[in-house]
Amino acid sequence: MRAVEVIRKKRDGGELTADELTAFVHGATTGQHWADYQLAAMLMAIYLRGLSAAETAHLTQAMTDSGRRFRLEDIPGPKVDKHSTGGVGDKTSLILGPLAAACGVVVPMMSGRGLGHTGGTLDKLEAIPGFRVGLSEEEFRDVLRKVGLALIGQTKDVAPADRTLYALRDVTATVESIPLITASILSKKLAEGISGLVIDVKSGHGAFMKTRHDARRLAETLIQVGIANGLRVAALITAMNTPLGRAVGNALEVIEAIETLKGRGPADLTELSVLLTVRMLQLAGVAATDTEREQRVRAALASGAGLEVFRKCIEAQGGDPRVIEDYSRLPTTRRTMAVVAPRSGYIAEMVAGAVGTASMVLGGGRERAEDRIDPAVGVICRAKPGEPVRAGEVVYEVHYRSTTRLLDVLPLLEQSVRISDHPPAAQPLVLEELG
Amino acid sequence: MRAVEVIRKKRDGGELTADELTAFVHGATTGQHWADYQLAAMLMAIYLRGLSAAETAHLTQAMTDSGRRFRLEDIPGPKVDKHSTGGVGDKTSLILGPLAAACGVVVPMMSGRGLGHTGGTLDKLEAIPGFRVGLSEEEFRDVLRKVGLALIGQTKDVAPADRTLYALRDVTATVESIPLITASILSKKLAEGISGLVIDVKSGHGAFMKTRHDARRLAETLIQVGIANGLRVAALITAMNTPLGRAVGNALEVIEAIETLKGRGPADLTELSVLLTVRMLQLAGVAATDTEREQRVRAALASGAGLEVFRKCIEAQGGDPRVIEDYSRLPTTRRTMAVVAPRSGYIAEMVAGAVGTASMVLGGGRERAEDRIDPAVGVICRAKPGEPVRAGEVVYEVHYRSTTRLLDVLPLLEQSVRISDHPPAAQPLVLEELG
Repeated sequence: MRAVEVIRKKRDGGELTADELTAFVHGATTGQHWADYQLAAMLMAIYLRGLSAAETAHLTQAMTDSGRRFRLEDIPGPKVDKHSTGGVGDKTSLILGPLAAACGVVVPMMSGRGLGHTGGTLDKLEAIPGFRVGLSEEEFRDVLRKVGLALIGQTKDVAPADRTLYALRDVTATVESIPLITASILSKKLAEGISGLVIDVKSGHGAFMKTRHDARRLAETLIQVGIANGLRVAALITAMNTPLGRAVGNALEVIEAIETLKGRGPADLTELSVLLTVRMLQLAGVAATDTEREQRVRAALASGAGLEVFRKCIEAQGGDPRVIEDYSRLPTTRRTMAVVAPRSGYIAEMVAGAVGTASMVLGGGRERAEDRIDPAVGVICRAKPGEPVRAGEVVYEVHYRSTTRLLDVLPLLEQSVRISDHPPAAQPLVLEELG
Repeated sequence: MRAVEVIRKKRDGGELTADELTAFVHGATTGQHWADYQLAAMLMAIYLRGLSAAETAHLTQAMTDSGRRFRLEDIPGPKVDKHSTGGVGDKTSLILGPLAAACGVVVPMMSGRGLGHTGGTLDKLEAIPGFRVGLSEEEFRDVLRKVGLALIGQTKDVAPADRTLYALRDVTATVESIPLITASILSKKLAEGISGLVIDVKSGHGAFMKTRHDARRLAETLIQVGIANGLRVAALITAMNTPLGRAVGNALEVIEAIETLKGRGPADLTELSVLLTVRMLQLAGVAATDTEREQRVRAALASGAGLEVFRKCIEAQGGDPRVIEDYSRLPTTRRTMAVVAPRSGYIAEMVAGAVGTASMVLGGGRERAEDRIDPAVGVICRAKPGEPVRAGEVVYEVHYRSTTRLLDVLPLLEQSVRISDHPPAAQPLVLEELG
């Protein structure tokens, strides 16, 4: 079948067959029969015409099959992972991975790097001296068997079609498409060899999905397409208007994750991590009720069992586990600058996107995929929405390396906070649970 | 401005500025700042989101300005051309060009080659031994000044952006877009240095525009965008369900065009050629009424003045003018095969697309742009819709070179004719006049 005929069919709103979608994915993987301009035209046609759930399921399967699939049957225990669509200050992976593993779930977590104003789990882990995210398959299996948790990067042979298509989407304005996002997320997760996946769909100014409506559509599509490919999926829609926790920046977030595993984390971060872990336990078939699951998760937190898993994981992946007791072993800028409240009142708003962009501009994130990052820089939110502040009190503590970049981000941060006379209405963190 | 931002704007249905469309066209012309996959994504976004009349006018102007524009002020007389959207057996250019020139219009006609089931004027002209369509600019001006008519191919420096974009459209299923068709047609015609253009928009099974509705939209857009670029445009919508005239194939069509200029052409071809010439005269400001214009055109036909212009044009462009008296000087297959009527009755239908495809498969057209063509092959329709036939009488006379190809087209031709007991209702040739 000719590429131009398949493009024409989708252009005219037709339903593509599994064979047609497989041909498209094969073209993206091999470069044969589909030139990149034909892939691009097809992506735009899909963006504007959409894909049905059945088409998205076929696309996902073809993308998974474009590369290798891990088989983890020889490692005992239920395999469940979590994915987030990306937020500011979201370090839950570093908390729930250890907690779930402490409760008997095997977590083969393959993560990505940060792009734009949102961070990436790999970048955070690499702030830990020596931590290797690029394990061989044998090492990966070893860590998983011994620790119950391995935190690695996607290898080149996992869903190679997604790499080609994602790079094209990025430069052809076809990123924000629910079927394409779904296929991209699930094809990589299906390759992990898991049976269950919890998805945290972020919704709000600081998220990919700006509206609740889009977030729900994405969550529903992920669940439907996951099931069609034999994967149990649970989805949470959570608010992403303000940073999660107080720390934004790679090393700063590692510290906050460790603090949370020690039981001293910010309430929002702790509660979301517990809730996501409960869902992972549910998909893994651990315990009979949510009440019981929550008790187990809180026990793993209180006993330090989760922290212990994280320590073992760091050690097994070549990192320095002493960072857990000694944060000074993590990279630091040694230079901080305060952004203070211009007047007394309550923090009414703190724009997540602005804080994320500030951290990126400081050097903590990537504007382009090839940018190098500085693990030490970032922003600590000393006050958060709903909290009272006095004029002159610190709102942001900016960890910076370059004065030029600091000067670039100060106005951004100053404008990101709104202070009101009265406390704002409380905003729920979890907006919806599906699946 | 970044390509991805311009694509995103059109993807979301925004109105592009002249600068944004110029950047897109500049990218297509130079390959700078716009990769071909970005051009392709933009073409699909335009296909599905459309362009307003203002956007189409800007796109057209940018495409014209991507190359050179002829200036013909130094050649006296009104310059008017005709363009057809492509039909089967349409050799009107070879008739109306000479007729209009005989009536005082200067016709600087740049034509294209055939693709698919429709023929191209250049291919027909090249059936004449020695005829050169690739004149230098000096030669072109000379012929135009001396003869009033020059029939040449688009030079490489005319609307180069169109060449890049057309090649991409062809392989990305973005050909059938009214704004893109409009910009492609008008950008090349504006480069000719004409002040008026008559457009024959074909409508029907054998045409690019299958429905009357689409044909009207295209005609209206061509008129509107032409005016916005300082070009007077008149448009006719004409039926293309059955071949125009009786001959389909390059040398066969040249013979039929000469016969028509001798006053012995088929009625449909003669009448359409006269009508199109009348419109050219109107745009050129020749005579005050259509009645007077028609008298002049019919006089040029009856007196042989049109034929004389064609003879001079052939001679001036290096062709052998003796073909006008001696058709045996044109290429011929010497082998013909008859397709006969299976029963007696009236020809109720004769599918233009099938006859055009048959001629192409015989070697008279191109399936791909790089295919070579055989000027001698083709099909003569011995009977046409509305005419009576007896069982065993010849319907098609197939001029073939290869027996294999003949065997390929015979079933196609047999199935292209429907014979009924009663004469079919007469079908008007001209469906509508606009502008």
